[in-house]
Amino acid sequence: MFLSPNNIKWHCTLVKKEDRCALNRHSSTVIWLTGLPSSGKSTVANQLEHMLFRYGLRSYILDGDNIRHGLNKNLSFTAEDRKENMRRVGEVAKLFIDAGLITIVAFVSPFRTDRQMVRDMFPKDEFLEVFVKCSLAVCELRDPKGLYKKARKGEIAHFTGVNDPYEAPEQPELEIETDKLSLDDCVRKIFRLLVDKKIVTHSDELGNQKSPGSPVQVPDPLLSFG
Amino acid sequence: MFLSPNNIKWHCTLVKKEDRCALNRHSSTVIWLTGLPSSGKSTVANQLEHMLFRYGLRSYILDGDNIRHGLNKNLSFTAEDRKENMRRVGEVAKLFIDAGLITIVAFVSPFRTDRQMVRDMFPKDEFLEVFVKCSLAVCELRDPKGLYKKARKGEIAHFTGVNDPYEAPEQPELEIETDKLSLDDCVRKIFRLLVDKKIVTHSDELGNQKSPGSPVQVPDPLLSFG
Repeated sequence: MFLSPNNIKWHCTLVKKEDRCALNRHSSTVIWLTGLPSSGKSTVANQLEHMLFRYGLRSYILDGDNIRHGLNKNLSFTAEDRKENMRRVGEVAKLFIDAGLITIVAFVSPFRTDRQMVRDMFPKDEFLEVFVKCSLAVCELRDPKGLYKKARKGEIAHFTGVNDPYEAPEQPELEIETDKLSLDDCVRKIFRLLVDKKIVTHSDELGNQKSPGSPVQVPDPLLSFG
Repeated sequence: MFLSPNNIKWHCTLVKKEDRCALNRHSSTVIWLTGLPSSGKSTVANQLEHMLFRYGLRSYILDGDNIRHGLNKNLSFTAEDRKENMRRVGEVAKLFIDAGLITIVAFVSPFRTDRQMVRDMFPKDEFLEVFVKCSLAVCELRDPKGLYKKARKGEIAHFTGVNDPYEAPEQPELEIETDKLSLDDCVRKIFRLLVDKKIVTHSDELGNQKSPGSPVQVPDPLLSFG
């Protein structure tokens, strides 16, 4: 027989997630952005990371397209490969939250069952599903890569929104309407979710910063918006 | 046709590796520990991470066994799957160094061509190969998981060192002899490599700490050993 899973021992590390989060002065979680192509997932992910970075919070973006250039470049767009694509991204996200980072995933992830599969990989509050909601009409108008146009011409099969379905989340932790809100407001809504879930801490008053070992404090005014 | 690689655009992120490294106050790199089973890779990885952590340096361990429980659980130990195993770990390590972390990989990785394949994925100085050298006799004596014993009985096929070859690195960045040096000395050697490669900075004198924005300074005495 080959070396079987029974022969592979899990090695506990000396430095644990809790230690890394203490060093970072915030908790880690996955923010899973799901939505139609061109709904604004990558844009929101980047703006969010930029905001987190400005506050000295540690984060990383796993972008569906970028991952397809590396880890998942040997996968196609068949249902089976899409599932494996999701699984791998889920597993990598687990490593990143173990490393203490706020992990932002920007990923069409059109199917409910696949998203549920990934959600089940995480403890509660370490997986926050954010529905990046945008009407198909607006997505098609944006179409920065011209992919909707190609799909409408029949040049791309299995293109989500055109010839493959997108199943909207039924109970996401958050919904952001990128065809109604400004980019800043979308990002602030996610930031508020992080505060609500106690991933990051905000100070009661501006300037109420605590000692270096305490959680990173973010000013409250950031959170005051429509 | 399906969505082809030509249709997948690389999204540049607003926050870049350099920004994350500036926030962390050190550079990122991969430390790839290769060696026979039971040569001490995981033990060294953990002790190293513990030392880095004590200095407030950001790191993460990708352990071959742990990755086989998650990301790579659908891979066997055939030559083809071992290669894919290596490729995926290499791709994940790339993400981690992009995230600004000192990424420690503890991985038997027995074949030279496979290690070269991974090395080629990184710019120079972002991949430091460390040969965890230990005689087969000592590895078999240690055998904490009893795997050598099983392999000798013919219960495990393709077990590196017994019925599958281990190809020692010819030009690793560093060699640590775990059957001759103490664990602390092994770890200090790797730490000194990180200083030599300017991944981390050490102060000329103890207590010579610079302003908060400057690189993390580690005291020199740590580096004084055999």
